[in-house]
Amino acid sequence: MFEIIEKDGLARIGKLKTAHGIIETPNLLPVYNPNIPLITPNEMKKIGMNGLITNAYIIYNTPELREQATKGVHSLISYDGIIMTDSGAYQSWMYREELEVSNQEIVEFQDLLKPDIGTILDIFTDTDSHEEAEKGVETTHGRGIEALNLRQKDSGILWAGPIQGGQFLDLVEKSARLMSELEFDYHPLGTLAPSLMSYNYKQVAEQIIVARLSMIQSRPLHAFSIGHPMFFSLAIACGADIFDSSAYALFAKNDRYLTNMGTLRLEKIHEFPCSCPICLKYKPKELLKMTLKERQCLIAEHNLYVTFQELKSIRQAIRTGRIWELVQTRVSAHPALLEAFRYILKKYGERLEPYELASKSTAFFYADTGSLDRPEIRRHQMKMQNLSLNARSVLLLVPEYPLNDLNLKFKRYVNKILEEIIEKERHLVQVAHVSPLFGIILEDLQGTYPLIQNEYPLDLCNQIPSRSLQVIENFMNSYRNQFSHIILYDPKDFQDPDIIKYNIKLQLFQQVVKNYESSGTVLDNHEHLKIKIERIFKN
Amino acid sequence: MFEIIEKDGLARIGKLKTAHGIIETPNLLPVYNPNIPLITPNEMKKIGMNGLITNAYIIYNTPELREQATKGVHSLISYDGIIMTDSGAYQSWMYREELEVSNQEIVEFQDLLKPDIGTILDIFTDTDSHEEAEKGVETTHGRGIEALNLRQKDSGILWAGPIQGGQFLDLVEKSARLMSELEFDYHPLGTLAPSLMSYNYKQVAEQIIVARLSMIQSRPLHAFSIGHPMFFSLAIACGADIFDSSAYALFAKNDRYLTNMGTLRLEKIHEFPCSCPICLKYKPKELLKMTLKERQCLIAEHNLYVTFQELKSIRQAIRTGRIWELVQTRVSAHPALLEAFRYILKKYGERLEPYELASKSTAFFYADTGSLDRPEIRRHQMKMQNLSLNARSVLLLVPEYPLNDLNLKFKRYVNKILEEIIEKERHLVQVAHVSPLFGIILEDLQGTYPLIQNEYPLDLCNQIPSRSLQVIENFMNSYRNQFSHIILYDPKDFQDPDIIKYNIKLQLFQQVVKNYESSGTVLDNHEHLKIKIERIFKN
Repeated sequence: MFEIIEKDGLARIGKLKTAHGIIETPNLLPVYNPNIPLITPNEMKKIGMNGLITNAYIIYNTPELREQATKGVHSLISYDGIIMTDSGAYQSWMYREELEVSNQEIVEFQDLLKPDIGTILDIFTDTDSHEEAEKGVETTHGRGIEALNLRQKDSGILWAGPIQGGQFLDLVEKSARLMSELEFDYHPLGTLAPSLMSYNYKQVAEQIIVARLSMIQSRPLHAFSIGHPMFFSLAIACGADIFDSSAYALFAKNDRYLTNMGTLRLEKIHEFPCSCPICLKYKPKELLKMTLKERQCLIAEHNLYVTFQELKSIRQAIRTGRIWELVQTRVSAHPALLEAFRYILKKYGERLEPYELASKSTAFFYADTGSLDRPEIRRHQMKMQNLSLNARSVLLLVPEYPLNDLNLKFKRYVNKILEEIIEKERHLVQVAHVSPLFGIILEDLQGTYPLIQNEYPLDLCNQIPSRSLQVIENFMNSYRNQFSHIILYDPKDFQDPDIIKYNIKLQLFQQVVKNYESSGTVLDNHEHLKIKIERIFKN
Repeated sequence: MFEIIEKDGLARIGKLKTAHGIIETPNLLPVYNPNIPLITPNEMKKIGMNGLITNAYIIYNTPELREQATKGVHSLISYDGIIMTDSGAYQSWMYREELEVSNQEIVEFQDLLKPDIGTILDIFTDTDSHEEAEKGVETTHGRGIEALNLRQKDSGILWAGPIQGGQFLDLVEKSARLMSELEFDYHPLGTLAPSLMSYNYKQVAEQIIVARLSMIQSRPLHAFSIGHPMFFSLAIACGADIFDSSAYALFAKNDRYLTNMGTLRLEKIHEFPCSCPICLKYKPKELLKMTLKERQCLIAEHNLYVTFQELKSIRQAIRTGRIWELVQTRVSAHPALLEAFRYILKKYGERLEPYELASKSTAFFYADTGSLDRPEIRRHQMKMQNLSLNARSVLLLVPEYPLNDLNLKFKRYVNKILEEIIEKERHLVQVAHVSPLFGIILEDLQGTYPLIQNEYPLDLCNQIPSRSLQVIENFMNSYRNQFSHIILYDPKDFQDPDIIKYNIKLQLFQQVVKNYESSGTVLDNHEHLKIKIERIFKN
């Protein structure tokens, strides 16, 4: 039912087959409330919508709609595309009301409505009590079992088993595991709205990543309530496949205009920074002169255009192995996003590593200190902890130069020195490059992704990134005893116009020299290096 | 002629009046080559073009066009909007050809063509020789004097006096100064193309900033050859008002599709990540099936849409005081841009400070270590170097907590301790908050922008930003002798659920405690603080 086409870390392109068509993921299902329709489903489809979500509980609770339930939800809202129904759990939280429906009633009601995806009645776990949250998780699980027994078989409905747990990550994990064991087709993750409302993207991102790592990977993960395009790419990099939201409409009602960098208030917009049909046709001033209802619809249309545009950007990034590069630009728009990005990579970088592609056709771009925790870098560091180094005599530590051409020149220069003296014993010298991005790169590994295909700002080589220093320390601790000699070659005599032009200072390497000068010999002149190597190999 | 409407640092919204209308700046004049027209001027106007640039030298060198010169350039290319003409300097560099025209001839020829803006024949200074570049600057200046004497008076043409100097910043400064002394209406900055071609955005940004700071501020600064939207915002923050470029067409010819994050190759695009009319109408696959000519036009149209969209985003950002926030997101898309951003702010942050608005309605957003060099932060640091502190007895150093609510709670907590003991002498205690963003914030200054209106990722308070540490050191060196007592209050007894929830560690403050424990008294308990203060004031 869910076919995974492409992967980039936890992000993926998938195709979910439903009775009324295929949803290409990542995607967003706009919330359609039949009682307060703003844009018709068919209009939304023209804007790029692939499917929508509406609420079985609202239909159930609205007598004139409920009467028509037997016609099916597609006829009820006049839309023959993909429709998911939610069950009322969110409403019970949002409006603090006791639901006038049981799990059994809402499941049976959805069997009448025949949506493409139906949802059991879960428990929203917005609580500071672990006990209460755990009860919610267990009740949701129990209702899952009940629902799967109750539902009509072969109805064509895909059933969604929500993952709950709220702020308690152990419970999110437990819930994801429990719900995964049941025969659901689809897992929405609940209780994200409270954190979203307080810009606590860190919390939301972590809930997503924990759910995703704990559930069956072959099912789609739907993150309930995420609707702001500026957060999409990070949420998808954390493992979300589908969102649903009424943000496009709710924001529009308050004259709020979405962009992939944040929200603008209509009265503060002088020119629309967008090329969608609405923004090319109208000026902000013209909208302000319209009735509230008229402009709400237009802003909602723009909000949907920008929503689907961002999803296209994300799918394009996934297909080209650049999801993290896209995330890096989006998180730079808001400190709360940047914080979530850094936090997630620091905490989960190692667990994300196995999901990372072995090789990509595009370069790794550094953008932030958080970039040093990306899975591509973690993988290299993990590799460095499990080396089976051949017995060698000499470890020769040298700097990595930034700029590919310059580094190539330097590598040739070092190699020439070595080959001239020791020719046949060249393999007994392990050359290791001190790199601001990767910590240590062994010359033998240099061909592998992304050790060469990467770009970072030159000033990084004039800094001392603490993660890179840590990697070097780990390497030295693990392997220094395998070498009879350690030489640190600080190539002060290696001159190149680019070194002056770009003010290259190699601070990280200077720090390494300081840290290990007592463990080895520091040389800053290639003649001395030659003499030293000669002496070692003549003995 | 050039009216400045709004400012945000060196970036500004301006209106340049010309014979055929007003250009709103920042803006881009697409290059229109009458010999290889891809999109007609009127079509470009529909896409959002405000004016174009064409080449007087090309017209001069094409017999059938040259014959019609007396009709004027507007009739020649069938466009009655704003037209600027360039003079051939770029062609002489690009195609390494001797120009078959003199300054006098091309100026007189432009007087016939009657563009809205005409350009004298400058010297492109792409050379590694300072002497040669200086000659180019001086010749260009001489030709400027000549041209202003030769040109028809009251022709309605605005005359552009190019600034040259290339990689030599002293020459860019000299050229800007010399050309500013002449009665030009407009200054283009030349010799940017070589650096642009090698992604050396640092060099280009620096040339722009030096030119802008050295020229008459009331004239527009045009940066020749900049055409990639991902670089626009940084170039504008460095002081550019107008660009011109044929990038939209040149990139389209090679199936390259522009975005504000970089360039995509058509064959690698699965979905167009854009909502412009072209991208909504066609799929990448459909374009690939068209003839080269057909799809070139369509990609060029998209490239123009995205170009003008980015300019709208930038103008919107300037009007709301958020140019640096926009720049921060754009530079995160490419390490070479990030490097330029950091470099420019580190080197020129202090010189940019006087141009910064005193107050903004929007918050300062931290996005990168480069953010700490922004002029808003520099201003605060400069203020801290020139304080006239009243005679006080005690300097009380305390941490700043992240999260506005938490910090407010802490401030009240400290204040309560002080007021309880010393009431009337409260003003004799100078409370200073150690802040990861600003270094030191004195309680008296806390109301001023952007000391409260700022957001940074919480993890910044668990780091030790070197710039902030430097500011604290400067402050302590300058003022410690003005206080009879220094107390460092490390509030280990100040408890709040948020401190645990958000894992707040205050590393910078811990470092300050380490650095200054010998100069003052360190207390980590409010009871001890009370006793200490009491003792001081009872003596």
